[in-house]
Amino acid sequence: MVSRTVIRGGLVITAADEMHTDVLVEEGRIAALAAHGSPHAESWSRSADRTIDATGKYVIPGGVDAHTHMELPFGGTFASDTFETGTRAAAWGGTTTIIDFAVQTRGHSLRQGLDAWYAKSDAQCAIDYAFHMIVSDVNDATLKEMDGLVAEGVSSFKLFMAYPGVFYSDDGQILRAMQRAGENGGLIMMHAENGIAIDVLVKQALERGETDPRYHGEVRKALLEAEATHRAIKLAQVAGAPLYVVHVSAQEAVAELARARHEGLPVFGETCPQYLFLSADNLAEPDFEGAKYVCSTPLRPKEHQAALWRGLRTNELQVVSTDHCPFCFSGQKELGRGDFSKIPNGLPGVENRMDLLHQAVVDGQISRRRWIEIACATPARMFGLYPKKGTIAPGADADIVIYDPHAEQTLSAATHHMNVDYSAYEGKRLTGRVETVLSRGEFVLTDREFTGRAGHGAYIPRGTCQYLH
Amino acid sequence: MVSRTVIRGGLVITAADEMHTDVLVEEGRIAALAAHGSPHAESWSRSADRTIDATGKYVIPGGVDAHTHMELPFGGTFASDTFETGTRAAAWGGTTTIIDFAVQTRGHSLRQGLDAWYAKSDAQCAIDYAFHMIVSDVNDATLKEMDGLVAEGVSSFKLFMAYPGVFYSDDGQILRAMQRAGENGGLIMMHAENGIAIDVLVKQALERGETDPRYHGEVRKALLEAEATHRAIKLAQVAGAPLYVVHVSAQEAVAELARARHEGLPVFGETCPQYLFLSADNLAEPDFEGAKYVCSTPLRPKEHQAALWRGLRTNELQVVSTDHCPFCFSGQKELGRGDFSKIPNGLPGVENRMDLLHQAVVDGQISRRRWIEIACATPARMFGLYPKKGTIAPGADADIVIYDPHAEQTLSAATHHMNVDYSAYEGKRLTGRVETVLSRGEFVLTDREFTGRAGHGAYIPRGTCQYLH
Amino acid sequence: MVSRTVIRGGLVITAADEMHTDVLVEEGRIAALAAHGSPHAESWSRSADRTIDATGKYVIPGGVDAHTHMELPFGGTFASDTFETGTRAAAWGGTTTIIDFAVQTRGHSLRQGLDAWYAKSDAQCAIDYAFHMIVSDVNDATLKEMDGLVAEGVSSFKLFMAYPGVFYSDDGQILRAMQRAGENGGLIMMHAENGIAIDVLVKQALERGETDPRYHGEVRKALLEAEATHRAIKLAQVAGAPLYVVHVSAQEAVAELARARHEGLPVFGETCPQYLFLSADNLAEPDFEGAKYVCSTPLRPKEHQAALWRGLRTNELQVVSTDHCPFCFSGQKELGRGDFSKIPNGLPGVENRMDLLHQAVVDGQISRRRWIEIACATPARMFGLYPKKGTIAPGADADIVIYDPHAEQTLSAATHHMNVDYSAYEGKRLTGRVETVLSRGEFVLTDREFTGRAGHGAYIPRGTCQYLH
Amino acid sequence: MVSRTVIRGGLVITAADEMHTDVLVEEGRIAALAAHGSPHAESWSRSADRTIDATGKYVIPGGVDAHTHMELPFGGTFASDTFETGTRAAAWGGTTTIIDFAVQTRGHSLRQGLDAWYAKSDAQCAIDYAFHMIVSDVNDATLKEMDGLVAEGVSSFKLFMAYPGVFYSDDGQILRAMQRAGENGGLIMMHAENGIAIDVLVKQALERGETDPRYHGEVRKALLEAEATHRAIKLAQVAGAPLYVVHVSAQEAVAELARARHEGLPVFGETCPQYLFLSADNLAEPDFEGAKYVCSTPLRPKEHQAALWRGLRTNELQVVSTDHCPFCFSGQKELGRGDFSKIPNGLPGVENRMDLLHQAVVDGQISRRRWIEIACATPARMFGLYPKKGTIAPGADADIVIYDPHAEQTLSAATHHMNVDYSAYEGKRLTGRVETVLSRGEFVLTDREFTGRAGHGAYIPRGTCQYLH
Repeated sequence: MVSRTVIRGGLVITAADEMHTDVLVEEGRIAALAAHGSPHAESWSRSADRTIDATGKYVIPGGVDAHTHMELPFGGTFASDTFETGTRAAAWGGTTTIIDFAVQTRGHSLRQGLDAWYAKSDAQCAIDYAFHMIVSDVNDATLKEMDGLVAEGVSSFKLFMAYPGVFYSDDGQILRAMQRAGENGGLIMMHAENGIAIDVLVKQALERGETDPRYHGEVRKALLEAEATHRAIKLAQVAGAPLYVVHVSAQEAVAELARARHEGLPVFGETCPQYLFLSADNLAEPDFEGAKYVCSTPLRPKEHQAALWRGLRTNELQVVSTDHCPFCFSGQKELGRGDFSKIPNGLPGVENRMDLLHQAVVDGQISRRRWIEIACATPARMFGLYPKKGTIAPGADADIVIYDPHAEQTLSAATHHMNVDYSAYEGKRLTGRVETVLSRGEFVLTDREFTGRAGHGAYIPRGTCQYLH
Repeated sequence: MVSRTVIRGGLVITAADEMHTDVLVEEGRIAALAAHGSPHAESWSRSADRTIDATGKYVIPGGVDAHTHMELPFGGTFASDTFETGTRAAAWGGTTTIIDFAVQTRGHSLRQGLDAWYAKSDAQCAIDYAFHMIVSDVNDATLKEMDGLVAEGVSSFKLFMAYPGVFYSDDGQILRAMQRAGENGGLIMMHAENGIAIDVLVKQALERGETDPRYHGEVRKALLEAEATHRAIKLAQVAGAPLYVVHVSAQEAVAELARARHEGLPVFGETCPQYLFLSADNLAEPDFEGAKYVCSTPLRPKEHQAALWRGLRTNELQVVSTDHCPFCFSGQKELGRGDFSKIPNGLPGVENRMDLLHQAVVDGQISRRRWIEIACATPARMFGLYPKKGTIAPGADADIVIYDPHAEQTLSAATHHMNVDYSAYEGKRLTGRVETVLSRGEFVLTDREFTGRAGHGAYIPRGTCQYLH
Repeated sequence: MVSRTVIRGGLVITAADEMHTDVLVEEGRIAALAAHGSPHAESWSRSADRTIDATGKYVIPGGVDAHTHMELPFGGTFASDTFETGTRAAAWGGTTTIIDFAVQTRGHSLRQGLDAWYAKSDAQCAIDYAFHMIVSDVNDATLKEMDGLVAEGVSSFKLFMAYPGVFYSDDGQILRAMQRAGENGGLIMMHAENGIAIDVLVKQALERGETDPRYHGEVRKALLEAEATHRAIKLAQVAGAPLYVVHVSAQEAVAELARARHEGLPVFGETCPQYLFLSADNLAEPDFEGAKYVCSTPLRPKEHQAALWRGLRTNELQVVSTDHCPFCFSGQKELGRGDFSKIPNGLPGVENRMDLLHQAVVDGQISRRRWIEIACATPARMFGLYPKKGTIAPGADADIVIYDPHAEQTLSAATHHMNVDYSAYEGKRLTGRVETVLSRGEFVLTDREFTGRAGHGAYIPRGTCQYLH
Repeated sequence: MVSRTVIRGGLVITAADEMHTDVLVEEGRIAALAAHGSPHAESWSRSADRTIDATGKYVIPGGVDAHTHMELPFGGTFASDTFETGTRAAAWGGTTTIIDFAVQTRGHSLRQGLDAWYAKSDAQCAIDYAFHMIVSDVNDATLKEMDGLVAEGVSSFKLFMAYPGVFYSDDGQILRAMQRAGENGGLIMMHAENGIAIDVLVKQALERGETDPRYHGEVRKALLEAEATHRAIKLAQVAGAPLYVVHVSAQEAVAELARARHEGLPVFGETCPQYLFLSADNLAEPDFEGAKYVCSTPLRPKEHQAALWRGLRTNELQVVSTDHCPFCFSGQKELGRGDFSKIPNGLPGVENRMDLLHQAVVDGQISRRRWIEIACATPARMFGLYPKKGTIAPGADADIVIYDPHAEQTLSAATHHMNVDYSAYEGKRLTGRVETVLSRGEFVLTDREFTGRAGHGAYIPRGTCQYLH
């Protein structure tokens, strides 16, 4: 027999609409929407197995976090969240889909990397998940593999202009991968920093005895992010391919994206909560505390934040993901004491994204619809998950969050659910909180009690990018 | 007893979503949406008074045309469509709401102008309608009146930088009106052309014997549209008010809007189908045929079209309206034989907008969602009609169009329903056609038979602009 | 018999060259230049009537100040320097040519205005002088007069986008004057501020009781200077005429000029020392002291200075003039106590320009050659005085300054020679000072003793602008 | 006894001045200038050993060609002009100084490369010459050598972003070299093309059978020149060093330079006559004739020419050099039959530059003063040759050209003096011709008879760049 859930009385918010609508969930999908108070809607409650009273709450699509790194090997250690712990934390934060990055190790095939990720994640996840592929070695063989991966549902490929010797691709490799993506429908995602130049500056800084975490921010210059962003755009233009730039943090990089978009190029940009809410001031915190904030691209001086918010409002930036890649301060971040270049790069955040962006709604930085657009709808469309994910509409997966816009909370490692010993937002007070989360109709979080389980989350093969501009 | 209509099997398209969803209409509103084929949806048909089979069709929100001029007095004559004929034609073309411009005559109050428009339109309209107010004389009295009009539901005010002596406001008047709008929530709509300079060029052209319609396009220079657009933006920035620029036609004007938006200013732009599909070549048609295409801003050389399409894709332009203002060739346009400056300014188009924009979808210029966004959703939000109008969601007015994306048609004065003796698109072949139109649940057009009536259409008081960016 | 003067041992600096060259002056002109120390140069001293030892000094062209207002009637009073006192002060400051503005009074012809200025200046000047013409009323008659004035040597015409009712021209008048200048070789000089909008803000400020001088700066907004600058550029582009924008003070206006020049338009910009060295902080000085700094365009917040210096370095700005228009604090500036709009607009400065700009050389803002270019060579070429003025080359007028780059001085009303009771730079310490000044070979200043006389200065009819870009 | 030459009656043109001035030359230097017709000037003729009557002619500084490659080894062959033949041809064309590029071979020191160039050029040159240094391998040793070379008079260093494996430096090497130059006063000259990406496109084109010379132009895309130009600018900005971009050919690259200069960065650009007068049409000439026009950066489609001319007028580009690097069609260019990538890169031109740029004066593209500025004065200052070279002023070297602005000539391999079997401008008719050339006072060309000799030309150690902006 079919299980029926009704969510009634809430304000349903999608990228386009805000309506007082009741939601009927059947068989893991959104079966119907009806105007609240209408006889039709009223009738649902009578037949429902379960009714959620969302009066005074928002009913929103589950978040889609298009950029996570569970268990990522980096600098001799591993990101501290497993797929189990990480997806559970995501659910606590109102995110019901993640797209994680499978990694090709140099000398091995894409296939091998992808299979390893399938294995790691299998039966572990509390919510649905999909994969991008990191291509560490663009060559004839891996180019051919790309076609197959697109067909298989791994339709986006991340390249690095930084980290020579590890992930780095040179401009010829980038161009070839872009050409291939232009043909097979794949989307190239770019880590845009001039790593060759940055590594010179790193070496010089260390030689000068500048070993503190704050120098991480100083050597990875905004100009070198802007440079790489511009270069990636021009290579994509030559290749005739679209481009998605990950973790944009510098206002000069936003300006490059804006310029390209104004010219009509299919170029997209993602930023992350840490660039919107944190700054180089955090990197400069004393007693090696700055290490908690070491990620690449790095946190920038505060004045960059305004440009990022403006870019989000004007659609010069389209997506906010987390780049969730947690390393414990104790034992992991500490690897870089005395040498900032040895600090594992990454921040925890998968649990905090929806709340931080709601705070931006409260603060007047973005509208409610735009909140849902940048956190749910656009990532779903960008990466071929739509219409299953990212919206509340009949036929879509019933990935739904009941969000209390008035609740107050304080972020803290003491209370968060990510497997990491610190919070990048320790003590930050927010208005708004996730109350209940459905994943394909199942209650993963119920009135702030975790009711999900590892293995509920399914792997979702993806289609291709659904955007032209 | 409640009348129930079900629309089943179609592809429902909104600004955000495309879903195979059945639509239940009750009491003039959208009562519910359900996934097509679900038991729930199937049950509806059994209780419905009327079922529309939309299989293979699009189900879209009725169009919102935010810029029409029914019966406008201009140059000693009147626009040839009355509210009755014009709204009927609109319905034929899939538009279910128009916002027309009430006109203040100099020396009279806004009130008098608005009342005259209430009277003209009363019990005439086939579809719903609302009003903007043209302010011809900004002064202490009219500024005060603006506050009242906003409260009454007339929340947008059009000013002219052209037509000195008739509609023209000087920069001081513009600034004052903008300041007032910044306070009372009104939105200033601007006709942005430097009319003072243009009138010098008009006079010089006529003195040189350049009297043909094509000189209308030559003297109203793109640079003078760009200039006025920039000026309006700067005045709005000084006033701290948002700005909506009507009928943008020049690529240089788009560039000014883009620049302002990149800087984060709340500046919006509308263009019209004539600028997207016609060009200065039409103005140069022989035997005074060019007069059919005389409107202001004028049609531009073809190369401007690409910039407008790009602007629509990148959201540098947000709305496509018609500026519907028809004058018959015979007897009206002919007033300007021998002197282009005496040709009544305006083109018919209220019936053609949705179809022409669908053709752009077919041509790959815009996506289906963007079609609905620029033609339905954004105009509704921009002018405070949302969530009644512009979307398909429970609770919204049941203004719905069944659109056949495969039907073929040829535009012609012989077959159109506007009260004007020519078509600006005579002979143009299009793919896609409106099949059935509901206005608040009533069938206005049924399988391409007009089943509406004058007086069905209701006046809709509007809220204020729902956009920040 | 011919009088011969030799200047030996100095560093001769022109816009292009810096050479250790001796200069031979005969009959009021530069007869020859010879390498210092060469037998040839040595021979000169033997036959010279007079030898100036310039060892360790600069030998530079006399300054050309292209923007002064001696005895200007303004707001019911007159600028306090007469042609006699003003040109004497100019000479003290190393300026050997001024171009003053003859004023057309509305209702009178250009001729009458020009003749009045001929009369006022006749036999009064210590240095050479020429005239621009302020056109207060562009109409058929004055347009015709413009042709004659160009032929007569008055080849530049100033229009105002501010001061409605006094100097203001509307955009149609501006366009017509530009068209005429495009034909007769004249150069339109523009006071670019949107005076219509500013006057609204002035009235509103006064109504709020904001009467202090600092409000002069606040109401005359940078954005409204930028707007007018952009508008003037577009009108000039439509007219096919070059444009020279006077007293540019806002960085946004510089950006408009830069944009136009990048597009290849023949657009030029002048700034003044007050915008480079003073700021809105001065306007906010207490006890009505701010009135000393009231001029239009107004002084801007400090951050604008950097943009102006950058513009001077990159040739986005080409000329530094003074807009010398002194009003005594006592009795003149005081007319505006209680109403900043009644403060006569203008600052003294004709004596200080060369020194202040040399200080910029000392400070590293500009090179020595650029100093001469912006203060001597370019104004001479821009206004058709070249090759008589603005350079040191055989055949040029012997307008030469011996400049001591190491002398120190302190600017003060106590020591300056302008007929005004305050200095805008009171107490400012500078490195560098004019030592000796020749005007057509005659000693006007000799080792800092005034040796000139009223009436030495000759009226110089000018050719047309010698710049294309 | 001193030899005295007088040049009388001509129009002396420098970057700043145009005067009817007689020129006295003594001991290889310009001893004095005197107004033509003055008694002083008249007296010179009586004592002169030699008098040149320049009536009706221009008297201009000898050209400074800052970019030549005599005897350059490239692709298994050598540029066909030796220092003897190349400098003789330069003299015929009015150029009196060249700056050639010494080449470091990988695995050898800068010293070795420079010494080889000293040896090759020694006692060969008809005119004065100096050297830049091509750094093929930036490492600790060569960085240290750079300091010494600056001190020795080789103060500019060329790096390549193209030609991997030969001249290519990666971004880290470039950054380090720029940092060093920022400290030692050297100037980095950049070949700005993304050679890594281009080589991918070359390989793909050849695989497609696209072997004709025209594909050389297609694969070396304008976007990849713009990209590299932007990247070089950003690296220079990070390094805090000035930058000089050689042979700019793409309008998009000019735009990058313009953008950087507007931001105040010390960035400079050079273009060459081939980009101003030839186009991709030449590369597409049939029968392998296109090979004659193969150089890198490549010739661009015609529409780029206008942007280059505009850049020269607005000072977005500062220098026109030749990049003279001739290869005979027969036996050399033919190496690339069947594979455009094997065609030696380079064009002859050292003889044609001054004439082609004078033609641009005739055509109204640039003024006479700008002609001298971009061809003589600026290159001299840019590369530390001033005030010896690049101007006509007392004390400067007597490198003087008597130029007949009215003579007509036709360019042809049949009549030119470069050691190459074709002319890139075969049959082109020009107005203006070099008549007589003095190098340090000696007659190298006398009424179009070569009167110079190999070995007259002296090596000139250079100072550092004399430009800040």
